[in-house]
Amino acid sequence: MADDRTTFLLTADDIPTHWVNIAADLPGDPPPPPLSPRTGQPAGPEDLAAIFPMALIEQEVSAEASIAIPDAVRDAYQLWRPTPMRRARRLEQALNTPARIYYKYEGGSPAGSHKPNSAVPQAYANKEAGITRLATETGAGQWGSSLAFACSLFGLECEVWMVGSSYDQKPYRRSMIQTWGGTVHRSPSDRTEAGRANASHPTGSLGIAISEAVEVAAQREDTNYALGSVLNHVLLHQTVIGIEAIAQMEMAGDRPDVVIGCVGGGSNFGGIAFPFLREKLRGDRDVRFVAAEPAACPTLTRGVYRYDFGDTAGLTPLMPMYTLGHDFVPAPVHAGGLRYHGDSPLVSALVRAGLVEARAYRQNETFEAAVRFARTEGVIPAPEPAHAIRAAIEEAEAAREAGEKRVILFNLCGHGHFDLAAYDAYLAGTLEDPEFSDADMQDALTRLPEAPLLA
Amino acid sequence: MADDRTTFLLTADDIPTHWVNIAADLPGDPPPPPLSPRTGQPAGPEDLAAIFPMALIEQEVSAEASIAIPDAVRDAYQLWRPTPMRRARRLEQALNTPARIYYKYEGGSPAGSHKPNSAVPQAYANKEAGITRLATETGAGQWGSSLAFACSLFGLECEVWMVGSSYDQKPYRRSMIQTWGGTVHRSPSDRTEAGRANASHPTGSLGIAISEAVEVAAQREDTNYALGSVLNHVLLHQTVIGIEAIAQMEMAGDRPDVVIGCVGGGSNFGGIAFPFLREKLRGDRDVRFVAAEPAACPTLTRGVYRYDFGDTAGLTPLMPMYTLGHDFVPAPVHAGGLRYHGDSPLVSALVRAGLVEARAYRQNETFEAAVRFARTEGVIPAPEPAHAIRAAIEEAEAAREAGEKRVILFNLCGHGHFDLAAYDAYLAGTLEDPEFSDADMQDALTRLPEAPLLA
Repeated sequence: MADDRTTFLLTADDIPTHWVNIAADLPGDPPPPPLSPRTGQPAGPEDLAAIFPMALIEQEVSAEASIAIPDAVRDAYQLWRPTPMRRARRLEQALNTPARIYYKYEGGSPAGSHKPNSAVPQAYANKEAGITRLATETGAGQWGSSLAFACSLFGLECEVWMVGSSYDQKPYRRSMIQTWGGTVHRSPSDRTEAGRANASHPTGSLGIAISEAVEVAAQREDTNYALGSVLNHVLLHQTVIGIEAIAQMEMAGDRPDVVIGCVGGGSNFGGIAFPFLREKLRGDRDVRFVAAEPAACPTLTRGVYRYDFGDTAGLTPLMPMYTLGHDFVPAPVHAGGLRYHGDSPLVSALVRAGLVEARAYRQNETFEAAVRFARTEGVIPAPEPAHAIRAAIEEAEAAREAGEKRVILFNLCGHGHFDLAAYDAYLAGTLEDPEFSDADMQDALTRLPEAPLLA
Repeated sequence: MADDRTTFLLTADDIPTHWVNIAADLPGDPPPPPLSPRTGQPAGPEDLAAIFPMALIEQEVSAEASIAIPDAVRDAYQLWRPTPMRRARRLEQALNTPARIYYKYEGGSPAGSHKPNSAVPQAYANKEAGITRLATETGAGQWGSSLAFACSLFGLECEVWMVGSSYDQKPYRRSMIQTWGGTVHRSPSDRTEAGRANASHPTGSLGIAISEAVEVAAQREDTNYALGSVLNHVLLHQTVIGIEAIAQMEMAGDRPDVVIGCVGGGSNFGGIAFPFLREKLRGDRDVRFVAAEPAACPTLTRGVYRYDFGDTAGLTPLMPMYTLGHDFVPAPVHAGGLRYHGDSPLVSALVRAGLVEARAYRQNETFEAAVRFARTEGVIPAPEPAHAIRAAIEEAEAAREAGEKRVILFNLCGHGHFDLAAYDAYLAGTLEDPEFSDADMQDALTRLPEAPLLA
């Protein structure tokens, strides 16, 4: 029997004590290891130690099902967690669907998105390891601003390479980084070899910006690198979202039939999905998972499952993942956080295994869903979770067609208060609707690095 | 014994059932009545009926101590309420103060501020009265966007006159109003007599914009007017903030010695203060109140306590309040929500009676406080609550000097994600620091309307 409330709120005591490490529960053979970019052999902790602290490397390769959250991190989580889960009753009514739609809302954090969930434990682990400075890249600016916030909490310096097109389009994310005391460079910059090699690139890309930040972190003893998605430990940190959502669905007296997240590198998707997936893999729950991505950067739906670099310059380990080619630069859609050529190896393996279904959406149809959501539920979503909303509406409409009381849960990973120019364009009918082309893929395939093929 | 948690969260069941009507508990004679602008005699409900629904007029003049919140409003409040209260432990440490600082955070609402607390009950009351369209003004855009959001929930049209300087400086609040389906005009506009009479005004003002919206509402049968502050019923609606805060202070096992809010028209200040003030007036609590306003528009600290119009054109009732003159146009400080020549009659009477202490702050000192807060507590505040933070820091520093364990509570009424250009200017050292001049006041005094003097 479902509850009649709209909002489901937890207390400070309900902040999770452990993250969910889904790697421990994956079926079949262990996932293929990352490979060293120098040797082509499996990368070990020593390959990562130049740019990450050991505590995060241990999380990256851990086989433990649960990993304790440090007290200092749980304490800092209280600055915005636990986050609300709400039932989208007004949207249900507007869709005239028998489905029940719930969403977890991560937009109330200081940065306005879910990214601080990983920025804070990363800053803390680096601080504990004696590091004084973190370098990173940022696309739409969500991650860079979140890391600057986290660094301000622990007294670290923060240096951010921001993808050129976002740097130009979204100056206010820059201001945010600076308000928290961080430094921002437009990428490609003239401060790194990777930047200078791409100096003429008009928009920049996440791949180039990652190369720049990794290069600086590898060269400086006092500086480490922090990544906002893709890696196992980042998805691990984000599982606080799903752990809280499990408790909140219990409060609501309901169980999701389908869990939905948008996917760029995979962190908000993994964050909401993995705790539910663990229960499914242990036989305690029947649930489907949907990963929603942009048609302009359809990594999971149209990429190849291959070893590829995480960055343009080939400085990162080779990772087993769906990829559109490490030098692919997606069209500048407003969902900047989803403009990444590759994807989390964990999410990629789950899609490969059929445990996660991927869908791609065009920019305009995601904004249509976002405006519909704003006008019924109030929150104006960021362009990234607009993809999840689109998928949730599709599921609700399918439930109506089937006459099913389907229960839908999605992650609304950030507000759209920095993306209102995109809403203007959508409302004026001038929003572009780019799509990935087969020629792009054929072209990218010719430049994939040599590496063993994946099953 | 104070709790060791940082965040104090309530559940959906804790959303208040009744608003606090402080008018019922005020000591001494009843506050002086508003006067009709046509007759100069006390204004009755009939003077308001052309632009407000009867349910709100009844709230405006009610002598009941508690007024029930309609179920539909409580239900909609769940889209962002109850809001968190947090203890600012990191700020306390940075200030090295024995004071305990708490803040209520209203920035997680769809509009990013406390304004929907009144926009929703106003839209609902108008819908129930058969009205199909609301007209309003907005300064920084917080109120206009909140009313557009509320109108979208209840299927009303929303037409907003936005102060010219904000319309030009803050295009994204416009986009927000449009995303929720509302219409925005730059004020002064050519759509009203009041606008045409001020056509050459370069920045516009709240006073002019109010005149435009009131004029349209008075002329059209299908249209009413909605005001985001100043009036009794608006402050009434905002008391959900303080009612929740009382419950949260109890959770924390603590009692505030001082309650602080910024003041423009008085709504967020009244919202947090009045529930605590009622307990003080009933003898159940010893607590001080501080109202923080901008030095560029120091209504409570340097204005005169007189009858004056709420708008530039003199269409509204004459209200008993502190005023800088109804045609005074404050310098364009970034705290647009505090740029109002007058003040809530309730807050004005409380300042007059010595129950509320008012303080004025310069723009740069409020941004200094805001950056300090952002770098310790995470949330980047809007420029308006930066005034409350400044006052809270002063209180905490005074407690340190006095060696007192003072307990401070302030209202953080909105996030600053739309105000980052102002942070850029502050960090670059180019933020202006305007102050009200005595010549301004002398000039304004010559144009105050004829009306009885106030005690």
